[in-house]
Amino acid sequence: MNIKEYMQDLGQAARAASRVLVTATTEQKNNALLAMAAQLEADAEFLKTENAKDLDAGKANGLDAAMLDRLAITDQGVAQMAEGLRQIAGLVDPIGEITDLRYRPSGIQVGKMRVPLGVVGIIYESRPNVTIDAAALCLKSGNAAILRGGSEAAYSNRALASCIQAGLEQAGLPKASVQVVETTDREAVGELIAMPKYVDVIIPRGGKGLIARISEHARVPVIKHLDGICHVYIDDDADKDKAIKVALNAKTHRYGVCNAMETLLVAESRAAEVLPELAKLYQEKGVELRGCEKTCALIEAKRATEEDWQTEYLAPVLSIRVVSDMQMAIEHIAQYSSAHTESIITENYTKARQFMAQVDSSSVMVNASTRFADGFEYGLGAEIGISTDKFHARGPVGLEGLTSQKYIVLGDGHIRQ
Amino acid sequence: MNIKEYMQDLGQAARAASRVLVTATTEQKNNALLAMAAQLEADAEFLKTENAKDLDAGKANGLDAAMLDRLAITDQGVAQMAEGLRQIAGLVDPIGEITDLRYRPSGIQVGKMRVPLGVVGIIYESRPNVTIDAAALCLKSGNAAILRGGSEAAYSNRALASCIQAGLEQAGLPKASVQVVETTDREAVGELIAMPKYVDVIIPRGGKGLIARISEHARVPVIKHLDGICHVYIDDDADKDKAIKVALNAKTHRYGVCNAMETLLVAESRAAEVLPELAKLYQEKGVELRGCEKTCALIEAKRATEEDWQTEYLAPVLSIRVVSDMQMAIEHIAQYSSAHTESIITENYTKARQFMAQVDSSSVMVNASTRFADGFEYGLGAEIGISTDKFHARGPVGLEGLTSQKYIVLGDGHIRQ
Repeated sequence: MNIKEYMQDLGQAARAASRVLVTATTEQKNNALLAMAAQLEADAEFLKTENAKDLDAGKANGLDAAMLDRLAITDQGVAQMAEGLRQIAGLVDPIGEITDLRYRPSGIQVGKMRVPLGVVGIIYESRPNVTIDAAALCLKSGNAAILRGGSEAAYSNRALASCIQAGLEQAGLPKASVQVVETTDREAVGELIAMPKYVDVIIPRGGKGLIARISEHARVPVIKHLDGICHVYIDDDADKDKAIKVALNAKTHRYGVCNAMETLLVAESRAAEVLPELAKLYQEKGVELRGCEKTCALIEAKRATEEDWQTEYLAPVLSIRVVSDMQMAIEHIAQYSSAHTESIITENYTKARQFMAQVDSSSVMVNASTRFADGFEYGLGAEIGISTDKFHARGPVGLEGLTSQKYIVLGDGHIRQ
Repeated sequence: MNIKEYMQDLGQAARAASRVLVTATTEQKNNALLAMAAQLEADAEFLKTENAKDLDAGKANGLDAAMLDRLAITDQGVAQMAEGLRQIAGLVDPIGEITDLRYRPSGIQVGKMRVPLGVVGIIYESRPNVTIDAAALCLKSGNAAILRGGSEAAYSNRALASCIQAGLEQAGLPKASVQVVETTDREAVGELIAMPKYVDVIIPRGGKGLIARISEHARVPVIKHLDGICHVYIDDDADKDKAIKVALNAKTHRYGVCNAMETLLVAESRAAEVLPELAKLYQEKGVELRGCEKTCALIEAKRATEEDWQTEYLAPVLSIRVVSDMQMAIEHIAQYSSAHTESIITENYTKARQFMAQVDSSSVMVNASTRFADGFEYGLGAEIGISTDKFHARGPVGLEGLTSQKYIVLGDGHIRQ
């Protein structure tokens, strides 16, 4: 197989399909999503059989328990994927929305129309459910999708693709609306990210290494986040109960997620009052604490190194730094944050406003847990990723992040004077 | 001079200034703009003296009359630059705007806050007025700017920079808010476009060659358009008077601009009625016509080649193609358009809707001249360029295109359940 030719063919077919999807009706797109859901349920046994081949190969190749767990398709998993498809069918269609249509002094009427981006390339690792999620979000937003899953899920993804194809066919939409890359050759990824003629944007989902590699070599825009080094700052004027509640939740609600807090910043004036109590709660949960010198003087903690401030633990580990005031907290965040999510705990109106204005992250919070940084919690109805870039989509990316706005001008024979 | 170090220093200073600009008040930014305007007027003689050095060097280097004309700073030019600054001071400050702030079922309140992109690099050719325009738009949108003008305008740009600096100083804003690259070494451009740590976006303004080169090598997002191959399609159901008026205006209102029509598409059913009349009007204006076979059978025109459909003439030349119907027009546009601006002339409601939905250009018009594709005509109040990309800003880019939106979350000690 010539990988370059194969990928170019996929690209060309995707581009052609995207031209059809632009004019697909909301009903057609929803019908396809609902048909896919029904097909998944009808094919549950087939999906599990194919998935078992991946699981067997994974075990033989020594995948660890966590990876096998992510790879597995269970009955519950099938039900969740089908439910996800039905939820996306239920979302408002973003395409064609016209906003800000206003008359100009010249007499023309100018507005913006929401349109698909075109062709979206998704590159992900072992979770097969991403195949369904990504296909559904791209389809609903009128984009053609080229999906490249992990090689360890090859059988599962091919089986899921057959359900997707069946759904597209039933709704009368082109099969190339969603294509799953059939080769596990790594060269295919290199091609996918370097076809600006056929692919408009790449969304990588997976580990930091994968995303960094793709960003470096992509010849098209990439919607991505590399790290989630999130901070909570307990201000001088924090309410103690809220501070403890939020700091505990932000770290311990789930460990392996990008919106978990990794570093806690505490105003010096409150450290002696807040830290011992918090340390006790963290220790009960088995969280390892690493602190600056002042922290270690107040609670039992390992001494944090420079590297700790730069680390996304994704684990029950927390670094803690005592800061002189909010400005020092903001400077720490500017230096070490990955621009994902930061939260201030304060009752002070002016400081809340300053923190929101000055912290340059995709989500900035007041008196709320960083764990809320999520497309569903924000009401996007879905999430294809979280962007820590400032360009195009920023923060949790839902359907709207997969669209663009073009200008429309309505006239009646108007000419420029 | 070590160019790399010099540019890194500029970048670092710009980044530091951008952190201050984020919190600059609207009043401070406007005061700076107004002070710059006053300084330009006070320094008119100095500006003209410095500009004369560039003009002399330009003549010695054999610049043509059109280039010298673009390079010249006249009294009228000074007045226009000052007026432009005052207009931008009068625009609404986009920064800090909070939209869509809504309560979620969890109790948190989620919204979006408009924020600056950070540091903007502008690369342009000989027009010195771009120095003032770009500085003003970046400042008003809270961005630090690094400006790299053409080497042929080096004295002029340095003189304009001194006025900008004076304005910033009077308003108490960091001098590094706007920096003009002092070296004319080409290596400086290479550095500017490859410092993602210090520069968030590059906006090139100038010829296609410059923009293509920058896009290819940039390591940060680029807001750009390469070509303006704009089309007007005269539909079967066009009103003849509107068709002729718009087709004439779109081509002949100004020739050397990106929103001028370069190719006219005419429905076969109307060609015999419309083309002879139009040809007469074009010939009166001295427009050279190049047509497809069917066109040449109806009017006197040179035979158009494949290359003509791909050419942005920027001159009194027009290519004309007779198409069987709207779908053929849309296909021609999909193949040859640069995705800048296309217009349909029709009285047919359904076809107008279809054309708007299917044509994938930054501006799509009905019964209006392509010449309207412009930030001022659209009511943006200013324009820093026109983007033919789909990512981030699309179409005319004003202040909003220089901003991003981050999420803000307001809670009262809310935690994720």
